[in-house]
Amino acid sequence: MGERDFIAARLAPLATTAAARGLSDDAAVWSPPLGRDLVFTHDVLACGVHYLPSDPPSDIAWKLLAVNLSDLAAMGARPSGVLMGLGLSIAEDDIWRAAFADGLGRALRHFGVALWGGDTVTGLAQAVLGLTAIGHVAPGKALSRNGAQVGDGVWVSGTIGDAGLGLAIARGKATPDQRLLNRFRRPQPRLLLGQALVGTATACMDISDGLLIDADRLAQASGVGIEIDLMAIPATAAASDAERLVRATAGDDYELLFTAPPGVDLAAIGGNTPVTRIGTVQAGAGVQIRGEQGALPLPERLGWEH
Amino acid sequence: MGERDFIAARLAPLATTAAARGLSDDAAVWSPPLGRDLVFTHDVLACGVHYLPSDPPSDIAWKLLAVNLSDLAAMGARPSGVLMGLGLSIAEDDIWRAAFADGLGRALRHFGVALWGGDTVTGLAQAVLGLTAIGHVAPGKALSRNGAQVGDGVWVSGTIGDAGLGLAIARGKATPDQRLLNRFRRPQPRLLLGQALVGTATACMDISDGLLIDADRLAQASGVGIEIDLMAIPATAAASDAERLVRATAGDDYELLFTAPPGVDLAAIGGNTPVTRIGTVQAGAGVQIRGEQGALPLPERLGWEH
Repeated sequence: MGERDFIAARLAPLATTAAARGLSDDAAVWSPPLGRDLVFTHDVLACGVHYLPSDPPSDIAWKLLAVNLSDLAAMGARPSGVLMGLGLSIAEDDIWRAAFADGLGRALRHFGVALWGGDTVTGLAQAVLGLTAIGHVAPGKALSRNGAQVGDGVWVSGTIGDAGLGLAIARGKATPDQRLLNRFRRPQPRLLLGQALVGTATACMDISDGLLIDADRLAQASGVGIEIDLMAIPATAAASDAERLVRATAGDDYELLFTAPPGVDLAAIGGNTPVTRIGTVQAGAGVQIRGEQGALPLPERLGWEH
Repeated sequence: MGERDFIAARLAPLATTAAARGLSDDAAVWSPPLGRDLVFTHDVLACGVHYLPSDPPSDIAWKLLAVNLSDLAAMGARPSGVLMGLGLSIAEDDIWRAAFADGLGRALRHFGVALWGGDTVTGLAQAVLGLTAIGHVAPGKALSRNGAQVGDGVWVSGTIGDAGLGLAIARGKATPDQRLLNRFRRPQPRLLLGQALVGTATACMDISDGLLIDADRLAQASGVGIEIDLMAIPATAAASDAERLVRATAGDDYELLFTAPPGVDLAAIGGNTPVTRIGTVQAGAGVQIRGEQGALPLPERLGWEH
């Protein structure tokens, strides 16, 4: 099946809104909601780099959408539509492509997001999948990394390090556990939490490369220091300090990391998504960590450095 | 230079508008112009497929931007911003990356378009470059492929087939000619013409895969037939019928193909961009061609079928 047939048979049926024009025009046309700022992100997943060739195609489609929606969540935005740039190799055969499109359709429906357009290119040496997500937020209210204030609490959503454990399982290096595998393959962008944080959080970002390295980036962007209590980091199971450090540098969490004034009660802000205070914004620069026995040296590797 | 250093040193200096937030947040934030529809497109260029590894990096950056702006032109839209997904291999070394970024900066300034964000991934087997372009148009006025009416004139901008000749030159298979080479490597999106056609053209698209195949697609989308006079197709130099057919199937023109009611005088609509009437919309289906001796059989290959 060529590019055009794939688009007509598999992707056009997913592009059901008027904006997409049935994928038959040169571009999509959308009337944005009145009085809202628009939020744009574009992330790329490459086969063998961001996912494993053996990952199910429907999970790859989920992840491609989810990691981009996670960026919108980090800005406090509500998603509207996406454009997709699919670069495929011969390894992504018709069966793979059909399963990818099925999974994409389910993911779009799950998140209530429209497929507006894009491009498909075949015959590449390696699959490279890009997606642009467009969302909206109240004017001037988008969250940012640069507003953390000394004295703010530092918070995360969900549990940290699960995706790293899931990756080890996917590689056959750990005991199978479907929940942890799904945490790697099917991340849950924290869209409702991000929207709830608008007007409350002083800074926010999503954790993609590892809690410590991303906290370091947020601290740098805000011109502050961040102290994290290693024992407070929410984890799926009890763990030693060393194991906690691994989880805090594993990446692929797609949880939100945010700061908020110390007096604000955030216990219920995430609805079904638990949020946990893990540290404090301090004067200074960069991230520091404390363990059960007091200050801990930073590990050499804070997370994924691209 | 790693991904992060490349972004900080080469791309962030190009992202000068507030919307980009210095490329330091998870997404871009933009206040759209009031009372306009937004137009979105995403095209991918792969090394060895859409451009040659030997093409100058600054020209590749130009082409990546230009082919996407050409889609906006086809909709009658004015461009605002872009997001870029760069997948790079080891072949795109620091020198290549610097030259690409320089060329991108020049192209962005030339077209008055802002870099809002994106993603860079290295270590791929082959360079794969995606770009999302966002523009705007008067509400309900975006051009489309599906409005051609029986009796309309069929028009093109510029000259057709130059890029095909330029590709032959780039491959060392034809006598060097910088102007034709530039027509392949540095296409000129017909933005002002596209905007001028809003309210006048009944259908419009850009010619990327070849005049004949794209005319066939416009005819299909509109549910009409299109007859093209081979001798009327504007070309850089005199040519035989056979040569004209080659040019009409060569692709990469990025000229506009459009239809307009027969009585409308379009001579001056393109400003400095010449427009030429090349045929007529008829009842029927698909594209037909006439040569000096009357009706001609369609060539087996109408253009690039992806």
